[in-house]
Amino acid sequence: MLNPGPTVAEILASHESGSGAPTSTAARVADAIAARGADGTWITPVPRERLIAAAAEIERRPGARTLPLYGVPFGVKDSIDVAGWPTTLACPDYAYTATDTAPAVRRLLDAGALFVGKTNLDQFATGLNGTRTPYPVPRSVFGGDLISGGSSSGSALAVALGQVPFCVATDTAGSGRVPAALNGIVGWKPSRGLISTVGLVPACRSLDCLTLMASRIEDLDRVFEVIAAPDPDDPWSRARGPRYDGARLRIGLPPESDLEFFGDEVYRRAHLAIRARLGGVGADRVPVSLRPFLDAGELLYQGPWVAERLVEFGDFLAERPDSILPVIREILTGGYRFDAVAVFRAQQRLQELRAIVARVWSEVDVVVVPTIGTTFTVDQVLADPIATNTVLGHYTHFGNLLDLTAVAVPMGVAADGRPVSAMVFGPALADDTVLAAAARLLDEPRPTGARTDVRLVQKEQR
Amino acid sequence: MLNPGPTVAEILASHESGSGAPTSTAARVADAIAARGADGTWITPVPRERLIAAAAEIERRPGARTLPLYGVPFGVKDSIDVAGWPTTLACPDYAYTATDTAPAVRRLLDAGALFVGKTNLDQFATGLNGTRTPYPVPRSVFGGDLISGGSSSGSALAVALGQVPFCVATDTAGSGRVPAALNGIVGWKPSRGLISTVGLVPACRSLDCLTLMASRIEDLDRVFEVIAAPDPDDPWSRARGPRYDGARLRIGLPPESDLEFFGDEVYRRAHLAIRARLGGVGADRVPVSLRPFLDAGELLYQGPWVAERLVEFGDFLAERPDSILPVIREILTGGYRFDAVAVFRAQQRLQELRAIVARVWSEVDVVVVPTIGTTFTVDQVLADPIATNTVLGHYTHFGNLLDLTAVAVPMGVAADGRPVSAMVFGPALADDTVLAAAARLLDEPRPTGARTDVRLVQKEQR
Repeated sequence: MLNPGPTVAEILASHESGSGAPTSTAARVADAIAARGADGTWITPVPRERLIAAAAEIERRPGARTLPLYGVPFGVKDSIDVAGWPTTLACPDYAYTATDTAPAVRRLLDAGALFVGKTNLDQFATGLNGTRTPYPVPRSVFGGDLISGGSSSGSALAVALGQVPFCVATDTAGSGRVPAALNGIVGWKPSRGLISTVGLVPACRSLDCLTLMASRIEDLDRVFEVIAAPDPDDPWSRARGPRYDGARLRIGLPPESDLEFFGDEVYRRAHLAIRARLGGVGADRVPVSLRPFLDAGELLYQGPWVAERLVEFGDFLAERPDSILPVIREILTGGYRFDAVAVFRAQQRLQELRAIVARVWSEVDVVVVPTIGTTFTVDQVLADPIATNTVLGHYTHFGNLLDLTAVAVPMGVAADGRPVSAMVFGPALADDTVLAAAARLLDEPRPTGARTDVRLVQKEQR
Repeated sequence: MLNPGPTVAEILASHESGSGAPTSTAARVADAIAARGADGTWITPVPRERLIAAAAEIERRPGARTLPLYGVPFGVKDSIDVAGWPTTLACPDYAYTATDTAPAVRRLLDAGALFVGKTNLDQFATGLNGTRTPYPVPRSVFGGDLISGGSSSGSALAVALGQVPFCVATDTAGSGRVPAALNGIVGWKPSRGLISTVGLVPACRSLDCLTLMASRIEDLDRVFEVIAAPDPDDPWSRARGPRYDGARLRIGLPPESDLEFFGDEVYRRAHLAIRARLGGVGADRVPVSLRPFLDAGELLYQGPWVAERLVEFGDFLAERPDSILPVIREILTGGYRFDAVAVFRAQQRLQELRAIVARVWSEVDVVVVPTIGTTFTVDQVLADPIATNTVLGHYTHFGNLLDLTAVAVPMGVAADGRPVSAMVFGPALADDTVLAAAARLLDEPRPTGARTDVRLVQKEQR
């Protein structure tokens, strides 16, 4: 079961007040990681002594206690560069030692955050299963041999285990939201371009998106204030949208017939119960069709975007095919099935769907759906890796194609003890509105208004 | 030499005042077309009697004299549907009789404009040469066996000959601006999406753009007020940007070393003379690099976008290859050389260039370059159709890839009598600013401010 450790806010409060210190936090984190052994959460954790030394160095910084993330430990998905550490993409033969730190991670470090290590992932960030790794296969913190979900499998686990209060991962087709759902944490895929993707080994560069995982919206807010910034070196970079203005939310709910649970009656009942409660969060419920979203998702799954992965991995696939896991090799090779015409045809169809979806946003502010329709065990996924992957991405595949912002929100457990997650999504740059809606689902108070208020209000709440 | 007929404004004034009438205008237009014979301007002109009958019908409309384009004759490129008339794309075996009128044309008809016929084009709107047609090959109105330019060859000629004061054509890679340059008229490619492309047989659907040709900016303004409108059936549709606010213009000028005239010293001197005069139009001249624009243009020419044409024409190419002109067949077939990976790689590179270009627009409002670097005769183009096409598109290929608005402005004749054209371009939705700059180049007064002022001010000027 979920055993969240201290939140970003709690760790900060402790470090700022002096009741705790980054070095003692570092020791606790190292011990927690060591206690789990080789459970597939981390590929390269920072060794205990180096972690404590890094924390001590943060403590010695002038004005350290005023740093916005003073001594807050965090993990980084192992497809994102941190200078001096290997970037493996869960493919040891692909691995290299990074010479530069991704600007997004650099901003966290500059803000006093403590880098704890690189987390496991589906190889080349390809897949939602969490089993496509030559390292130990991680399992959901909820047990029952449930997959951790992928591709950011280790990142979600590290947060769910309470080892770190947040992780920086990625979400191209659901890689952040699916493992968040399977581990009972919050996984937020902001609008593309708000967090620099420089220093990320691309999966599909036109769709890639850094994502944040934490246990509370409040923590996401704090980290986002630090990590989000326009980056002139990132061609997809763009500026943040407006703050949520506090207006009554219009929550779009698809008809039940648009929802797919793949025969999972427990999950169906759990999700319908969530919908029933939505009237109590100070919002209007508005029916919307999920069809254009799902149609876009099918484009991603069946269409040519897989070929975009070959822009990055094509040479390696040609030169070292045996270094790649068979299922990943099969997926990547499939990209060569598509010709240029297929891409343009699919992109034209996508534009039609985008135009339809654009009209949805005049009717609702956000839409709420399940994050995943059902769950799988490790054995189920290994037995049928492609079909299960498709099922897992049913509600997430369309997110970046349609330029959405989306957050997976943990909503407790189902009757059989499995984690239940609702996804709140909205249009590009409506990030703050989506987080506001997510906070209401979580019954988590969240200030609205100017950005600088966030920290002040939370200080008052302590 | 250029022999412009009456402008939109003049025809309107005449019809409104009663000094002229749509039926007499129709007769004049029909006579002018007939006088030229089969010169390759029109593929399907409306026969004289039908044209006059249509004009009479317009005259009988209630409140006809208040119609914004009351009795103003216009031509339509023969890749755009007009109900009841064949759409040939300059490929007789492809031709069909349109059952619906393109919404853009419909708006003109509703405003009282008089449809005069369908104009010649490079087959499938593929090419900038103006010679790729099974119909008579049109020649520039400037003589000397100069090409008319393409693909909107006939549309430009119809305006330059004074037969109609404006035409509706298209400009995917320069198809509107190049023939405008070669015929001494104004060719404006608005930002993509401002004029509905529904009812246009697509060339590259993601880049296609309807374009307007006329002899004055004032006429473009009038027509644009009628034709521009969001269209829910066009997935690329978007709303117009702001009006030019009258602020001092910052005109970007590339260094001379960035300009290419392909050895044409006469054109080089003519363009440099235009640049020298720009100080006198109440604008600041700011140096900008043309490199990122040209790099994008090369992507279009050498890259996979040609494959997008196969989304539309692939089936016809497979079924009726002999119905297609050899040069067009060769170009289309070339689209199959590209795989999906090539598209994503090129689009990623394009995104990098877009990011670079985005920064240009913080420094300047518009950029001025030649529309074409040199000219060709019909024989030159027939001898080497591909290379000459590339030269003709040097300054236009990048326009839609970089989401620009661009207008070709006639700037008189060079020392040897050939037409000189300058292109003014700016970022998406800066259409009004680009037209304002173009009007200054033409020494044409143009009101700024609210849209509805345009007509009022012009009425006062009469």
